[in-house]
Amino acid sequence: MALIVQKYGGSSVADAECVKRVAQRIVATKKAGNDVVVVVSAMGDTTDDLIDMAEQVSPLPPARELDMLLTAGERISMALLAMAIANLGHEARSFTGSQAGVITDGAHGKAKIIDVTPGRIRAALDEGSICIVAGFQGVSQGTKDITTLGRGGSDTTAVALAAALEADCCEIYTDVDGVFTADPRIVGAARRIPRISYEEMLEMAASGAKILHLRCVEYARRYNIPIHVRSSFSQKEGTWVVDSSDIEGHEMEQAIISGVAHDRSEAKITVVGVPDKVGEAATIFTVLSEAEINIDMIVQNVSAASTGRTDISFTLPASDGQSALAALNKLKERIGFESLRYDDRIGKVSLIGAGMRSHPGVTATFFAAIADAGVNIEMISTSEIRISVVVAQDDIDTAVAAAHRAFDLDAEQVEAVVYGGTGR
Amino acid sequence: MALIVQKYGGSSVADAECVKRVAQRIVATKKAGNDVVVVVSAMGDTTDDLIDMAEQVSPLPPARELDMLLTAGERISMALLAMAIANLGHEARSFTGSQAGVITDGAHGKAKIIDVTPGRIRAALDEGSICIVAGFQGVSQGTKDITTLGRGGSDTTAVALAAALEADCCEIYTDVDGVFTADPRIVGAARRIPRISYEEMLEMAASGAKILHLRCVEYARRYNIPIHVRSSFSQKEGTWVVDSSDIEGHEMEQAIISGVAHDRSEAKITVVGVPDKVGEAATIFTVLSEAEINIDMIVQNVSAASTGRTDISFTLPASDGQSALAALNKLKERIGFESLRYDDRIGKVSLIGAGMRSHPGVTATFFAAIADAGVNIEMISTSEIRISVVVAQDDIDTAVAAAHRAFDLDAEQVEAVVYGGTGR
Repeated sequence: MALIVQKYGGSSVADAECVKRVAQRIVATKKAGNDVVVVVSAMGDTTDDLIDMAEQVSPLPPARELDMLLTAGERISMALLAMAIANLGHEARSFTGSQAGVITDGAHGKAKIIDVTPGRIRAALDEGSICIVAGFQGVSQGTKDITTLGRGGSDTTAVALAAALEADCCEIYTDVDGVFTADPRIVGAARRIPRISYEEMLEMAASGAKILHLRCVEYARRYNIPIHVRSSFSQKEGTWVVDSSDIEGHEMEQAIISGVAHDRSEAKITVVGVPDKVGEAATIFTVLSEAEINIDMIVQNVSAASTGRTDISFTLPASDGQSALAALNKLKERIGFESLRYDDRIGKVSLIGAGMRSHPGVTATFFAAIADAGVNIEMISTSEIRISVVVAQDDIDTAVAAAHRAFDLDAEQVEAVVYGGTGR
Repeated sequence: MALIVQKYGGSSVADAECVKRVAQRIVATKKAGNDVVVVVSAMGDTTDDLIDMAEQVSPLPPARELDMLLTAGERISMALLAMAIANLGHEARSFTGSQAGVITDGAHGKAKIIDVTPGRIRAALDEGSICIVAGFQGVSQGTKDITTLGRGGSDTTAVALAAALEADCCEIYTDVDGVFTADPRIVGAARRIPRISYEEMLEMAASGAKILHLRCVEYARRYNIPIHVRSSFSQKEGTWVVDSSDIEGHEMEQAIISGVAHDRSEAKITVVGVPDKVGEAATIFTVLSEAEINIDMIVQNVSAASTGRTDISFTLPASDGQSALAALNKLKERIGFESLRYDDRIGKVSLIGAGMRSHPGVTATFFAAIADAGVNIEMISTSEIRISVVVAQDDIDTAVAAAHRAFDLDAEQVEAVVYGGTGR
């Protein structure tokens, strides 16, 4: 008998019909002889509706109370889901994050999980119950206030519970069939990736693939929890996110490249005319870090000998753009830079694949494909298993399609190469 | 510095504007130098909407999960209220029933409060916070499941917290100005009652006055918590519900009669032709009690000597009518009664007043007033401080108005008599 943790997102439980369909899937898993723990998000637009209500009473609601408000969303969906399962003749019990033992720090709105003590879940499982747990929420250590985990929180709840319960796997249900080699809306020939390593999935997530959140993959990697990303609207196998040793050992002909990700949510700031002195770059990024702004890519041009000045460009979430500009402008005198340039019409295209470590020429092929498509590269950054380039936002689709084709990822071409292994 | 517990019902926090207005009232109480604990119900129709959702997924939702679902309602209203108060520059913290230490038994949907351990509330008060507590909910002893208190639950939460915190008083805010001598929709001249004893208020509540629930008044009486029933839409004094010793000592000329209450929600069942043997009535009412049906008034006719049979009539909530008929029909053979008659076109009119103890002739005046108005009395029941009669439902308004007039309760007539005391 396996223990399976399933997570259903808001679109999977958007209305009563959806809730009933999900209940059937859960009961089927139970009937197949498994213990089942389900993590559920708030229904459809509930969270947005609650935020609207908060804005109507206060322009800047206290974070503690916003968390108290938002956690009403999962309370509703989890109780309804438990009712729908009971209506199918199976015992189901719902638990808040606090009841499920999800202990967090006190950072309201973006709490981190410190510990999971699922004693009540285990007891309910032992009594034969299906357990429904509210995603996205926990209770703070010490003060015992209700907290929310922030973006991707429900996925993280699911993986954290799977780890604490030593579950056999964690199924993340979504509205697509799994992780694809590129966004199918851009590349019609994009294929589902049957198996991918945690590291590649992390790079995919960091590069704009929205299907799994960074935190959840990091958690799964740390505790070695296999994640199965699949659709709640079909019975198809999805994508398994697993330890790299579980891939390379089984698949004889590992794909060089897993996929092409893209991200439209970033902006680029260029600090023009920075005096080329030791420590200026450090000052700039210390200030941005103090303003809690996450920097992604950084490029520093070679200093022009004639002026002794240089330009520093970096990318960041466009939503942080205005606060970053404000923070830097306060520093203008101290650093003595000339001006700031801001561009939010950019995009990032990333090539991800553990195989590129051992295959020379990947970078050259990638740049050539983009150049041949007539797209100009503005910035470049690389890691062991990823190459990212910044291009004009209008060029993203062209660049993604070109890279996808250049690495033989299009479905009709590469079945033999990429599915070379045994799969699962 | 006083400690005041305030309770706001669903209509007082029906939308964002209402929430903001209530926040101002709370802040004004705090600014006047009081510690404030606020108990709040779910907004407007939230509870009904949640029940609708439950019915969409299951015809008979498990009670535990229904409680989990419904408690989302107060979670939303209390968080919004705390935000609105914070927006006025005051520290406010919201607490679930569980966090506030409202410990109940495990009877989901109609849980009873076993204990209140408001340690977190007291600590927050000591830190200068206004505390907002979810009404209507608690956590079960032992199993630590979320429970709801059933009808009138938020009022009971408020009084129970007031008792546990040794508050100076409990203000129950509603959409009318207090307790009236009769329903102002029936008797235009009805007056607000400035002070009433717990006992009279209990009889009013039991007789159909919907303004305070029985349980809440019982709780207040047991712990001697003064209740101030008042409108959230005005600054007027409302009605104080207090210990009778606090009335008779202060008010020289205690009103004989507090008011006239009525109730349209009951039905009458007549068990026709019951053999006049010892124990038959007991059998009937044991069966009804086992079916958890609350009986109100009972009348047994004198047995007709010729047949050796009698009729037993009783009233009960009309909502329990069908289950009572079913329970009795199962018993038909055993008791050997002839038939059952069911009438839900009845109503109850009650005269309430501690003063009637010491004033003879009240009963006669009451019956005469009703008879003079041309209304037929079907059943009668009395207590120390109440006389109730059952009449045809269409005659209720006439009977209420006639009784109100006969006891000089109409506003223009009686100011001198009823306000004879010092009031408060």
